[in-house]
Amino acid sequence: MTHETLDAGTKLPAEAIDAIERAATAATHPHEELFSARAANIKQSAVRDVFDISMRPGLVSLAGGNPYLQSLPLEKLGQTAARIIAEDGMTALQYGGGQGTAELRQQVCAIMAAEGIMDAQPENIVITAGSQSAQDVATKVFCNPGDVVLVENPTYVGALNTFEAYQVQVEPIEMDDDGLVPELLEARIAALQSEGKSIKFLYTIPNFNNPSGITLAEARRQQIVDICRKANIIVLEDNPYGLLRFDGHPIAPMRAANPDDVIYLGSFSKIFAPGLRIGWALVPAHLQRRFYLASEAVTLCPPPLNQMLVSAYLRDYDWQGQVETYRGLYAERCNALLSALDEYMPAGVSWTRPDGGFFVWVTLPEAVDTYPLLKKAIDAGVVFIPGAAFSPADGPSNKLRLAFSAVPPDTIAEGVRRLAPVLAEAIKATTEGAAL
Amino acid sequence: MTHETLDAGTKLPAEAIDAIERAATAATHPHEELFSARAANIKQSAVRDVFDISMRPGLVSLAGGNPYLQSLPLEKLGQTAARIIAEDGMTALQYGGGQGTAELRQQVCAIMAAEGIMDAQPENIVITAGSQSAQDVATKVFCNPGDVVLVENPTYVGALNTFEAYQVQVEPIEMDDDGLVPELLEARIAALQSEGKSIKFLYTIPNFNNPSGITLAEARRQQIVDICRKANIIVLEDNPYGLLRFDGHPIAPMRAANPDDVIYLGSFSKIFAPGLRIGWALVPAHLQRRFYLASEAVTLCPPPLNQMLVSAYLRDYDWQGQVETYRGLYAERCNALLSALDEYMPAGVSWTRPDGGFFVWVTLPEAVDTYPLLKKAIDAGVVFIPGAAFSPADGPSNKLRLAFSAVPPDTIAEGVRRLAPVLAEAIKATTEGAAL
Repeated sequence: MTHETLDAGTKLPAEAIDAIERAATAATHPHEELFSARAANIKQSAVRDVFDISMRPGLVSLAGGNPYLQSLPLEKLGQTAARIIAEDGMTALQYGGGQGTAELRQQVCAIMAAEGIMDAQPENIVITAGSQSAQDVATKVFCNPGDVVLVENPTYVGALNTFEAYQVQVEPIEMDDDGLVPELLEARIAALQSEGKSIKFLYTIPNFNNPSGITLAEARRQQIVDICRKANIIVLEDNPYGLLRFDGHPIAPMRAANPDDVIYLGSFSKIFAPGLRIGWALVPAHLQRRFYLASEAVTLCPPPLNQMLVSAYLRDYDWQGQVETYRGLYAERCNALLSALDEYMPAGVSWTRPDGGFFVWVTLPEAVDTYPLLKKAIDAGVVFIPGAAFSPADGPSNKLRLAFSAVPPDTIAEGVRRLAPVLAEAIKATTEGAAL
Repeated sequence: MTHETLDAGTKLPAEAIDAIERAATAATHPHEELFSARAANIKQSAVRDVFDISMRPGLVSLAGGNPYLQSLPLEKLGQTAARIIAEDGMTALQYGGGQGTAELRQQVCAIMAAEGIMDAQPENIVITAGSQSAQDVATKVFCNPGDVVLVENPTYVGALNTFEAYQVQVEPIEMDDDGLVPELLEARIAALQSEGKSIKFLYTIPNFNNPSGITLAEARRQQIVDICRKANIIVLEDNPYGLLRFDGHPIAPMRAANPDDVIYLGSFSKIFAPGLRIGWALVPAHLQRRFYLASEAVTLCPPPLNQMLVSAYLRDYDWQGQVETYRGLYAERCNALLSALDEYMPAGVSWTRPDGGFFVWVTLPEAVDTYPLLKKAIDAGVVFIPGAAFSPADGPSNKLRLAFSAVPPDTIAEGVRRLAPVLAEAIKATTEGAAL
């Protein structure tokens, strides 16, 4: 797929969305009445819609947060997979344990140690089908319909989809440049608990939040855990990007000093390969058994072949060197995006400056809704994700997410150059509208 | 692992189970009150307990329904995996579509055609993480807490675990030698609906049912679909063993003539390799979208590498020849088990004679509970699964499951020879007890 030429025949996203809605409402089969109450909460991800569109030739996609895999040693990885199947195929291709292999759980402890979690035990780790599956299991184990889950605003769209499938009330808490604001968290917890609401966990992406790129300041981390502990709320700390900090040392995860209060989620999707669908949860000892059994009830076991390939990669390859490569690569792309934004963005637009990860979060004047701009952006040859996708409310949003992970620096600049006039026109239109 | 020598130091299952119970009840952390209502329904699978025990050297395990993978061309499969990663690694290791790859969905249509489903369309197929995951998704999409799911008695323990995690009322319907009895199904539906119960689906394994080995007679299949259609109940037809019929042609699945009434579940676990965790659901067109979105909300996508390896296997290998090999191999093992039962079993014991699949279901006199016999059997050097595991009721069962799939014929005979005196003693004890 090339991002260089623009295909004039690009189909509009509105058409695709209309078709989906038609399909959803046209059905009159008596089976309709059999759907569970939660089924109505299971929605098409706006991000997925845009992914399909962004695969079209000619478009510059700043939509998808795909990792850049070209720098992996594919030939050698293929030989490793061949050896695993030829020599250990009876294990790799057979059913495995529901908790994951002992070797991988041991290795995961070493990865977490690199981030500052020094006391992880393999028996408290559950290997999952990506950390998406761990979010699903956590919600299954803790949430009754109507229970509250707290999230950062904005937060990961996949987690929102998972939570909503359990009919959970998702309550977004505002962030500032230092991440989730402890005072707002504390006040919201107090208000919700005084209403009699049962708050089960806080879902947080403290490092280079998806979609905002914002990092939770070190000084706030313990404060937030303390607030949650006091209110008997579990912290679900999702840290897929933690090792992808551009400079300096990682900030210790909230889990590091709080082994009983935090379920920590890790993933190989960003530091190795998302297509293997291997992540993990480090679960407090008193919660581990229920978490593990719920995970087993969904998929029996994570695929042994995939786990063994990850284990071999961690054992026999310079995975830390690869992470260094990724850090440099993503830093370069982030800089390309920030430079292009500096160069092209019209007045009234601001954006975050992430210390790592994949995303920059762009804010337009309040009167601008970014969702209708998507169609215009596609016409101009660039794709982004509108901000509304990252919030449980369905209302308009003056934000949008730009992903720099999967696109070369020159193409990033071209994408921003295409986006700028679309945003400028929208800002002009709202200013004129306001002046009438 | 060898099954030939008996390890005198074998740990008792009761000890393991006690330890689990202690761990479950000792906890007094305030997080205990955060568990969802459904979490209490997520239980340790008795089958899993026994699997762990049955890995010990010296035991003959007739417990695990693992497929026999030794006849797979592992060296060649390894080379195929190497080529996929080296040449298509950017796809194989990257995120993929939530519904599964187009190629695999096309190929799955051809597999189902071999079983008699001629009209399957790739767009109505959802690739899942094994058919276990498809059972989970179906329950998620259709079942509110308290809804009823109908199952055969006995039925697959993994499905029971999945259903119970959704707080569903599982209602077992009796089988005879020709499978589920339509009259009993119809009467139970009438009784439940007259109580105001909402019955969502019938879960059935029509071919070589796990654990009983019983096949639903051809004449009953349409009858059962008609009963369900009339009552507006979906049929969830799970057919992992369908191609593993020892002789003759497959009986057409219920889905074949009933495209709107049946969700059909298939799996590569028994005809290729369970460790890849790839199965599929063929979903009626009017239910497909909700099913697919729910699947995506759990794991984002099935692992592309695994799907591509299955596709290459179906494309470039003689997979039908391999199925023929499996059929011959499992027929031989089944015969070895039946012969050994004929030779060694005491009076009062009867068993099924399956036409395919992995399992024989053994019935003891009604007064005998097979669960306490497990410990004695392990002492005697053989492992089985007690019948209680395969029924939603927790009461005693005079049945037990023997799996012949993973064990060579000679070892099967030795296992039955070890089992016979344990059963004879139990029968004698109950007879004497009754005589007192």
